[in-house]
Amino acid sequence: MAARIPLKQLSRKTVFPNTFFSSRLPSSFAPTRTLATVTPSSSSPGPNGTAIVLLNMGGPSTVPEVQDFLSRLFADADLIPLGRLQKYIGPLIARRRTPKIEKQYSVIGGGSPIRRWSEYQAEETCKVLDKLHPSTAPHKPYVAFRYAAPLTEDTFLKMQKDGVKRAVAFTQYPQYSCSTTGSSLNELWRLAKKHDPEGKIEWSVIDRWPTHKGLVDTVAKHVEASLDSYPKEDREKVVLLFSAHSLPMSVVNRGDSYPAEVAATVYAVMQRLGFKNPYRLVWQSQVGPSPWLGAQTSNTVEHYVKKGQTKLLLIPIAFTSDHIETLHELDLEIIAESKQPGIKRAESLNGDPMFIEALADIAHKHLQSGIKASRQLELRCPMCVSERCREQKQFFSGREGLE
Amino acid sequence: MAARIPLKQLSRKTVFPNTFFSSRLPSSFAPTRTLATVTPSSSSPGPNGTAIVLLNMGGPSTVPEVQDFLSRLFADADLIPLGRLQKYIGPLIARRRTPKIEKQYSVIGGGSPIRRWSEYQAEETCKVLDKLHPSTAPHKPYVAFRYAAPLTEDTFLKMQKDGVKRAVAFTQYPQYSCSTTGSSLNELWRLAKKHDPEGKIEWSVIDRWPTHKGLVDTVAKHVEASLDSYPKEDREKVVLLFSAHSLPMSVVNRGDSYPAEVAATVYAVMQRLGFKNPYRLVWQSQVGPSPWLGAQTSNTVEHYVKKGQTKLLLIPIAFTSDHIETLHELDLEIIAESKQPGIKRAESLNGDPMFIEALADIAHKHLQSGIKASRQLELRCPMCVSERCREQKQFFSGREGLE
Repeated sequence: MAARIPLKQLSRKTVFPNTFFSSRLPSSFAPTRTLATVTPSSSSPGPNGTAIVLLNMGGPSTVPEVQDFLSRLFADADLIPLGRLQKYIGPLIARRRTPKIEKQYSVIGGGSPIRRWSEYQAEETCKVLDKLHPSTAPHKPYVAFRYAAPLTEDTFLKMQKDGVKRAVAFTQYPQYSCSTTGSSLNELWRLAKKHDPEGKIEWSVIDRWPTHKGLVDTVAKHVEASLDSYPKEDREKVVLLFSAHSLPMSVVNRGDSYPAEVAATVYAVMQRLGFKNPYRLVWQSQVGPSPWLGAQTSNTVEHYVKKGQTKLLLIPIAFTSDHIETLHELDLEIIAESKQPGIKRAESLNGDPMFIEALADIAHKHLQSGIKASRQLELRCPMCVSERCREQKQFFSGREGLE
Repeated sequence: MAARIPLKQLSRKTVFPNTFFSSRLPSSFAPTRTLATVTPSSSSPGPNGTAIVLLNMGGPSTVPEVQDFLSRLFADADLIPLGRLQKYIGPLIARRRTPKIEKQYSVIGGGSPIRRWSEYQAEETCKVLDKLHPSTAPHKPYVAFRYAAPLTEDTFLKMQKDGVKRAVAFTQYPQYSCSTTGSSLNELWRLAKKHDPEGKIEWSVIDRWPTHKGLVDTVAKHVEASLDSYPKEDREKVVLLFSAHSLPMSVVNRGDSYPAEVAATVYAVMQRLGFKNPYRLVWQSQVGPSPWLGAQTSNTVEHYVKKGQTKLLLIPIAFTSDHIETLHELDLEIIAESKQPGIKRAESLNGDPMFIEALADIAHKHLQSGIKASRQLELRCPMCVSERCREQKQFFSGREGLE
């Protein structure tokens, strides 16, 4: 098994090596798919241009970073609410899980590729953006992770040192969840209060982009490439399983937007694919004893195989870069374990130039619109009781009075 | 309160009285939004034209029909799986709930309007369809309800008596669930085996239409009409709450398509509305002690009001005609109870000519395509163990081998 990984990883990294630096943008990006405008805000850059800050959870780039990564993850009440004892229970769980997770990162090549991909995406996006929207150039790439280096605080301090006056917080989760984008924004808001109380950096936020045409087209292209690897007569029988990270039902029932936005992405990809294959949206990576949203990816594969349906294509639909949930959970725990040659996975978006163009187009349209954030960002979940969510939303949307 | 109902009902019924018979179809119905084709099948009519059979759950048209309605509902293992004792437990629950539900139907005017609306929609759709697709005319309207008159079996027998040779089963649930459209199709399949073993009636199925442009445009128009009733300065502060009937988590976790398709409808409506208002998809009508999908509509309204957000517009997004869940649950239990003038409901689609045109367009495109059913109908839920689902899907899709 271990011998298979480096080759596999290599192929994932080198799918589009010759066209990486293309800056051509499809002319057909549909403006109707962008989110609505809020209060207009200046989109003119400071003297140092515009910082494009890619937000994500991050992952340990090396095995020795695993414990710190898990400690931060289990300390985050936005992601894993453990109540008043979070400070004590979080580190305990992190320590207990470390050996198992270290082993998983060893197996996938000694660390998460997410930093490499994120830094590459940020740099390439800025290059395209300088051409698309010169009035806010130069666009300067930053990556701000929640639980691994480069940590959001370190990036924030670096931005201040670089003299940044205008910054776009650009979530790399296409669909908004309070556990993911919400947690990153809460962290940014805390840091702005702490390190920039006078508000010298002017922020705006790209908080979601679930059906951006460039995202949808790139996912669809990767699905088609995978379908082409099946014998022609089998292709239309392949069941497409779009797999997204699940959420605890407590978060779903609080009114988190994520499940509905993930479903919107899936439907848009199926429209683009012409509904030629049957499909399901399924949910992966459940942990712990509390109920999570299903159907579970692993159960789904198991049950379809039992029924004789062994042509399944797994499609990561909520993360855009490879990470442990694709390289270990999908590729090894589910696909390799199934021992079915007809069960495969579509490539993640990673460094596909079509995806880079999509990121640049999203940022371009955001800068053109002059919006501070989407209308959706203003609205707290109906059952939300978090004061930090309330204040963060006011800070980034520039509005008060909407709960 | 009681004095308010007839007026309210009257206004709901008479919104578009002067344009009911318009047969103009918008030229811009996007073909990319239709579902994919399966095996081509003849769409030429028999000598008696084409039966257009509107499927729905139905509701008691008068209060004395309530007990029979509930008995059928609780006997349906596709809707409410009660295990081996269904035959005994079902009638018990139905009897126990009858007095409460009778009272609710009394309050909303003495019965459900769903039969009236369905018969009207079927007739008007056929009139438009005769002009749009003369090669399969005459189109003959039928309504087949699952739990109330006209029952599916009575409609089936009537169709045979009328000499029908070609029929389109047209679900009136825009989003597919095994509990709703699946239950109606299982019933149709059982009846075909029982009354038409030689297959003299050729069936095809319109099994879902969650983002049909006409549906989306009509819902969006009703939302805009409701928003216009708020003072101009408040309009953009109104939170849109799209409310759909919830599902038990056991059904969600089995892999039912419904939550993702409802989310697709909501997203399409928000795209059409330009994302000008913040919104949430919420879920109503939970019953019993087992966990259901949330966030709950009633909880959501209660919590937003507590937070001071009292401008809420409820939008029925999964049922197209008024029924007890709109007229009693939303209008009385939630809206009237809240005593907040800023909490309102968008009109159901009912007899809006734009909706009739949408129904006719969906049937038109289905007949043109020659498909038997969508590719999605072929695929059972991953965790499905129902043999009737398996056989029904083979019967209607005309395919074997996909589980």
